[in-house]
Amino acid sequence: MSLNTFGHLFRVTTWGESHGPALGATVDGCPPGVEISEDAIQHWMDRRRPGQSRFTTQRREADEVRILSGTFEGRTTGTPIQLLIENTDQRSKDYGEIAQTFRPGHADLAYHQKYGLRDYRGGGRSSARETAARVAAGGVARAALGALAPGVRIAGYMVGMGERSVGTVKPDEAENPFRVPDAALVDEWAAYLDGLRKSGESVGATIEVRIEGCPPGLGAPVYGKLDADLAAAMMSINAVKGVEIGEGMAAGRLTGSANADEIVMGEDGPEYLSNHAGGVLGGISTGQNIVVRFAVKPTSSILTPRRSVTLGGEETEVVTKGRHDPCVGIRAVPVAEAMAACVVLDHLLLDRGQTGGVRGIVG
Amino acid sequence: MSLNTFGHLFRVTTWGESHGPALGATVDGCPPGVEISEDAIQHWMDRRRPGQSRFTTQRREADEVRILSGTFEGRTTGTPIQLLIENTDQRSKDYGEIAQTFRPGHADLAYHQKYGLRDYRGGGRSSARETAARVAAGGVARAALGALAPGVRIAGYMVGMGERSVGTVKPDEAENPFRVPDAALVDEWAAYLDGLRKSGESVGATIEVRIEGCPPGLGAPVYGKLDADLAAAMMSINAVKGVEIGEGMAAGRLTGSANADEIVMGEDGPEYLSNHAGGVLGGISTGQNIVVRFAVKPTSSILTPRRSVTLGGEETEVVTKGRHDPCVGIRAVPVAEAMAACVVLDHLLLDRGQTGGVRGIVG
Amino acid sequence: MSLNTFGHLFRVTTWGESHGPALGATVDGCPPGVEISEDAIQHWMDRRRPGQSRFTTQRREADEVRILSGTFEGRTTGTPIQLLIENTDQRSKDYGEIAQTFRPGHADLAYHQKYGLRDYRGGGRSSARETAARVAAGGVARAALGALAPGVRIAGYMVGMGERSVGTVKPDEAENPFRVPDAALVDEWAAYLDGLRKSGESVGATIEVRIEGCPPGLGAPVYGKLDADLAAAMMSINAVKGVEIGEGMAAGRLTGSANADEIVMGEDGPEYLSNHAGGVLGGISTGQNIVVRFAVKPTSSILTPRRSVTLGGEETEVVTKGRHDPCVGIRAVPVAEAMAACVVLDHLLLDRGQTGGVRGIVG
Amino acid sequence: MSLNTFGHLFRVTTWGESHGPALGATVDGCPPGVEISEDAIQHWMDRRRPGQSRFTTQRREADEVRILSGTFEGRTTGTPIQLLIENTDQRSKDYGEIAQTFRPGHADLAYHQKYGLRDYRGGGRSSARETAARVAAGGVARAALGALAPGVRIAGYMVGMGERSVGTVKPDEAENPFRVPDAALVDEWAAYLDGLRKSGESVGATIEVRIEGCPPGLGAPVYGKLDADLAAAMMSINAVKGVEIGEGMAAGRLTGSANADEIVMGEDGPEYLSNHAGGVLGGISTGQNIVVRFAVKPTSSILTPRRSVTLGGEETEVVTKGRHDPCVGIRAVPVAEAMAACVVLDHLLLDRGQTGGVRGIVG
Repeated sequence: MSLNTFGHLFRVTTWGESHGPALGATVDGCPPGVEISEDAIQHWMDRRRPGQSRFTTQRREADEVRILSGTFEGRTTGTPIQLLIENTDQRSKDYGEIAQTFRPGHADLAYHQKYGLRDYRGGGRSSARETAARVAAGGVARAALGALAPGVRIAGYMVGMGERSVGTVKPDEAENPFRVPDAALVDEWAAYLDGLRKSGESVGATIEVRIEGCPPGLGAPVYGKLDADLAAAMMSINAVKGVEIGEGMAAGRLTGSANADEIVMGEDGPEYLSNHAGGVLGGISTGQNIVVRFAVKPTSSILTPRRSVTLGGEETEVVTKGRHDPCVGIRAVPVAEAMAACVVLDHLLLDRGQTGGVRGIVG
Repeated sequence: MSLNTFGHLFRVTTWGESHGPALGATVDGCPPGVEISEDAIQHWMDRRRPGQSRFTTQRREADEVRILSGTFEGRTTGTPIQLLIENTDQRSKDYGEIAQTFRPGHADLAYHQKYGLRDYRGGGRSSARETAARVAAGGVARAALGALAPGVRIAGYMVGMGERSVGTVKPDEAENPFRVPDAALVDEWAAYLDGLRKSGESVGATIEVRIEGCPPGLGAPVYGKLDADLAAAMMSINAVKGVEIGEGMAAGRLTGSANADEIVMGEDGPEYLSNHAGGVLGGISTGQNIVVRFAVKPTSSILTPRRSVTLGGEETEVVTKGRHDPCVGIRAVPVAEAMAACVVLDHLLLDRGQTGGVRGIVG
Repeated sequence: MSLNTFGHLFRVTTWGESHGPALGATVDGCPPGVEISEDAIQHWMDRRRPGQSRFTTQRREADEVRILSGTFEGRTTGTPIQLLIENTDQRSKDYGEIAQTFRPGHADLAYHQKYGLRDYRGGGRSSARETAARVAAGGVARAALGALAPGVRIAGYMVGMGERSVGTVKPDEAENPFRVPDAALVDEWAAYLDGLRKSGESVGATIEVRIEGCPPGLGAPVYGKLDADLAAAMMSINAVKGVEIGEGMAAGRLTGSANADEIVMGEDGPEYLSNHAGGVLGGISTGQNIVVRFAVKPTSSILTPRRSVTLGGEETEVVTKGRHDPCVGIRAVPVAEAMAACVVLDHLLLDRGQTGGVRGIVG
Repeated sequence: MSLNTFGHLFRVTTWGESHGPALGATVDGCPPGVEISEDAIQHWMDRRRPGQSRFTTQRREADEVRILSGTFEGRTTGTPIQLLIENTDQRSKDYGEIAQTFRPGHADLAYHQKYGLRDYRGGGRSSARETAARVAAGGVARAALGALAPGVRIAGYMVGMGERSVGTVKPDEAENPFRVPDAALVDEWAAYLDGLRKSGESVGATIEVRIEGCPPGLGAPVYGKLDADLAAAMMSINAVKGVEIGEGMAAGRLTGSANADEIVMGEDGPEYLSNHAGGVLGGISTGQNIVVRFAVKPTSSILTPRRSVTLGGEETEVVTKGRHDPCVGIRAVPVAEAMAACVVLDHLLLDRGQTGGVRGIVG
C-alpha cells in the first residue's frame, strides 16, 4: 500500500501540512544499532532549508528536526523513528485571498474535487514543504547505509535550468546555490534566474542523481524493480513530470548495437564497458553507477496573471504573491537524494531478506 | 508490497517464465458482478500476440487465455481470477548455447548475481513474455472499467521509432503493424525497420498512452499519486528507460507562464484551456486526458557480435540468433495499455474506498 | 506489510517508547470531511489513562492528545492525521536497576536477542504505554464510524478476572473501575484485587468486546477475514494470549446441530435465531452482534522474586517495584474497543472500495 | 494488504473455487536455490487429501499438485511459484437444490449479501477445498525452512474432538486417522465419531500445532507480532473460532507468580524453566517451543433439518446431503501445519531483512 507511505521494508510515512503546527516522518523498519543523531539528520535538512540564497523562497523556517522515538543512547533500536519538524514561519495571511480561488497549475482544484474540502493554506498537504520530512527520513537512510553499505555515495545535481544545461558533470564543483556541477556556469545561471525572478517568472529544471557504489543484485523483479521504485519515488516529488534511467527517453532513438553495454572481465569480476543502462538491467542493480534524471516543472506561483475560477464558479485571474521559489528544482536536489537513499536502503534490506544477499560468482 | 504484484486494491500478480509450461496472472480485488469472458480477454491478447507481422518475433504462440477461477455464469464473483496462458512454442534449443554466457544488455548477469542461479531459457522471468500475463489482467481491468466508468478510453500509440517520430497523433489511423498514429508514415517506417531487421539490428521506440474520460479525483497523494503509479507501471515493463507525464522532460525547460494550464468555467464545471500537466496535478487526475509517454530501448538480441563473459569468467562474443523483435516497442503498446487500465481501475476502487467518490462541486 | 502499522485502507502506525519524549499514532486513510476534535479523542484517552483508581498503575500521565496534521477547520481533510501524546511522568530511575537484567515474563530478553540492544526504560516499545496511541487512533476511527455508519456501537467489558467471571453481561452496569458488566460484582472484585495488589501479586483477565449495528458484508475473504483481522488486532495487544469469536474455543466441543444458527425471515430481511457464530461467517459480518473475547495474562511485574539472568550471563532474582497494574486487563478494555473500531472502519472502507457496498437483497 | 494473500515477504495468494476447473497458490518471495519437487509437495498434500478414511468426506480428489513456474532444474529461482491442483471430482448436482437456499452455519448468505451473487457450487470460494492450496504452499515453505532453518519441526495434533480431549500429547503416537497424539484413544474416538456420522451429526475439534526448534528473535513488533500473525493465520482457516498461544484463554485466570516463566543460564545461554508463554514474548519467539491451539466448529452440513431462507425470501428447512466431513477438524491439522510453516518462514525472511539476523548474546 502507498498513500502516504513509501518503501517495502524501510517504510517512511510522511505527515503534515504547510501551515499546521508541525510536519514529520514516521520511519519504520530501520535496522537496529545504527548510530544516529539529530545533528546528523540536520546536516541534510540544512541543504534543503529555504531562505539560504536569493534564489529560493524567503520563507524563514529553521527546519529543526527532533527525534521523538526509536533511538536509545545514540543508536537506532529497530523501532519506529519519529522525526518532527515544527512549522515556525506560517504567514497564513498570504493565502487568505486564495481560500476561495483555485490557483492554476497547482493541485488546489484537484484536491477540492477529490476530497470535497482542502486546507488551502500554502497548498496544505500538496505543498513542497512536505519534502522537508522526506529529507529527514533520508538522513536516517543515509546513516543506515553508512553502516550497512559504506561504499554507497548518493549525490544530486541540477543539470538543466530552463534552456540552460550542463555539459560534463563535474561532481566536485556542485557546492553552489544551484547545485550545478560546473562552477563556470554559476554566474550565468544566477543572472538568468535573477532576470526571471525579478519579472515574477519561474522556470523548470532537470536534476540528475547519481548513486555510486551500489552493490549488484538490488531490485525485486518484476513490480518492485529498482528502477520502477526509483521512478515512482522521483515522480512522487512535487512538480516532477518525467523520470529517466541511464539513456532515458533517448533510448527510444538508439539502435541495439549503440545501446548495449559490453562486458569484460576485470580484476574483481565482470565489468561493463559503458553504462547506457544507467546501472539497472531487468530491474536489478548491475554494480555500475545508477543514474537517474528527472524534470521539475516551473512553479505555477508567478506574478503573471493567469485565468482561473473560484469555489463559487466565478471566473477570475490569479497572481501569486506569496514567497515562492523561482526555480523549485534547486531545492528538489536534496529531496531526490533523500528519496534515492531510502530506495537503495529499502532494496538492500529487501534483498537481504529475500535472497540472504546471495551473490552469484562469475569466474 | 510489490515484487511480483502490482496495485493497491486491484492487485495483479504475474507468474511464469518464458519457457516453462505456462504463465499467467492472479487477479485479486476485481469487483463482483462484472461481465467477463475468455473471448473478451483474448481480444486484447491478440493485439500483443507475436508472429502477426514480419516486424515482430516469429515465435508462434497461440497465447490462448483460460479463466480458471473467480467467475460464475459469466460474471466475476469478487474472488481471485486466475488467468492461465500455456507456452506452446518453446524452442529451448535456441538458448542452449547461452546457458553459460551472459547476453550483454540483458538481465542475465544481474539475475545471476542476485539469485546465484537463473532459468536461462529465453530470459526466464525477465523475458518480455511475462507481459502476456499483464495483457490478460488488463483485459479484466478493461471489463471492470467498462462497468464502473464506461467513459474511460485507453489507447496507446508508437509515436517514435529510432530517429523517426510522429507529428500530430491521429488516433483513427493507428490500426497498422506499428500502431503508429499516422497512416502516411507506415510505409516509410516499414522500410526503415526492414532495413534494420535484415542487418540484424534492433531499434528503440517511444510509446504514448492516452487515457480519455478519466474522472477527476483519482490518485492517492503523496506516495500513491496517480502519475507515480503510472510511472512505476510503465518503468516495470521490460526495456523501458524513461517515463513522462504531460510535458514530461520538456517541463524542465519551460517557464511558469508557459506551463500553467489556465482554468475557465465550462458548461459542466471548470475546464482547462491547455494540458501541459498531462491530466494530473498533485498526483490527482484533473478530468483532462492523461498523457503518458515512455521510451523502450532497442532489444539487445542482435546479430552484431558484442563482447561479454561466461559463467566461468572467460571473455567471449555474443551474437543472438533467437527469434526476436527488431523493435520491441511495437508489442509494448498493448502492454502499456493494459498497465494503464489496471492503474486507473485500481485508483477508482481506492478512491471509492477512501473518499466514497466524494466530488467537490465548483459553482 | 505490518510491523508498526495495522489496517488495509485505514492505516494506523504507532510509534514511541514508554520513556521517550512522546509517543503517538500516524493515521492514514481517514475519509475526508469527518468532524473531529482533540476533545473528542481525549474522551477515549481518559478511559485508558492510568492513575484513575487504586487498581491501576499510579504513574500520572496526563495523556493529552494533540492533533498535528490532517484536519482543517474541525474536519478531516483526507491527509495523514498525526496524534501526539507527550510522556510527562517518566521516572526512569525506577528502571535503572534492571538495565542489566531481563525481567522474566516480559519481552526484555526477546528484544535483546532480536535487536542486540534495547531501550530498557519501562520496556521501551514493548510497554503497554504504546496502547495509548492506539486509543487515540481509535478515537479517530470512532469519529469516522459516527459519520459513515452511525448505527455501530462498540463496547468492551471485563467478563473475567482471575477465577472470577461474569454471568450475564449487563451493558448498562459497566461504568465502574473494572468495567465489569454487573454492578453487583464490583465490591467483591475490588476486595479480591485489593488482596492481590497488597501481596504484590497480579492477575489475568478476560475481556469481551461487542460490536453492535455492524452492517452485513464486511470482511475480505480469505486472508483479510473480519474475524482474522480482529484476532490479529487483539493478539497484538500486550499480554493477550487467546482470542475467541462467538463460541470461541467452546466451538470445538459442540455438535453441528447445537452450533448452527438458524435463519428466518424478519421484517427487514433474514434474521438469525441464535449467534453461536459471533456475527461472522466465512470471514464476513452477518449483521448480528460481533462478539470477541480475549484473555490477558497477569502482568509479570510482581513483588514475588522470580529467577532470571543478567546481560552478563549471571543468574539473579527479579522483584519488580515499579508502578504497575495489578490487573492490566482493566486498561485493556478501551484499547480493545479502539482496535475494534479501527478494524470495523477499515473493512467498511475496504468493502466500499472492493464492492462499492453492493448488498445482495433477499426476498 | 490481505484479501487473498498472506505473508509479508513469503507471500502466498490462493485462488480457486470448490467446483471450478482448478485451484492453486501463487507463491512469491521464496528464496532462490531451494531444492523442491512436486513429489515433496505431494507428500504434504496427501495428508490432507479427502477420502482416506471413513471419517472424512468421500469426495475423491487426487489432489495432484503441479509446479508451473518458479523452479529450474529442481531448485527455486526466486521467482513466483505457481502451484496448480485440478478439481477432478466435481459432483455439482449435489448442490443444485441449494442454489436458491442459504445453508445455515455456512457463509452462503454472507457472501450473497457482500457480493450480490455467489458461486453456490460447494460453497465456491468459502469451501474448505481452498485449503488444499494452502497445504501446497506450505510444502514450499517446509522445503525452504529445511534449507534455511533445518532444526525447525512443525507438527499438528487433534487434542480434542467434541467432549473428548487428550491428556498428555505423545507426538510419536499421532499417525492415525484422527492425528490424535495418544494411540490408546483411537478406538474410542473412532466409535464416538462413527456414532455421530451415522446419525448425520458433526462435531467440533481442538487442534494443537507445535513449532520446535524455532530460533529466537522472530516476530515484528508491534503489529506483525509472531503470535498475532499465527492467530490471523489460524483464524483464516475455515470454521476456526478461537486461537490460543501457550496458556491461551486460561492465562486470564492465572496469577502473575503462577504464569511467569523463570529464566536460568543453560549451557548455550538463557533457558526458560517453563513455557506458559507458548514460545512468544512481546510478539517475538523466545527459542522455546511455540504452542498454538485453535478450535474448529462442527461443520454445518448435517442431516438434521435446520431452518433457513431462500433467495426469494421464503422460509425453508435445509438438510445437507453432500459428501461432508463429520469432523472437519481432522483435515484442519495439515492445513494448520502449512500455515505455521508459512508464518515461520515469512518471519525468518523478514527478520533477516530487518535485522540481518542480529542476535544479542547473553553472558
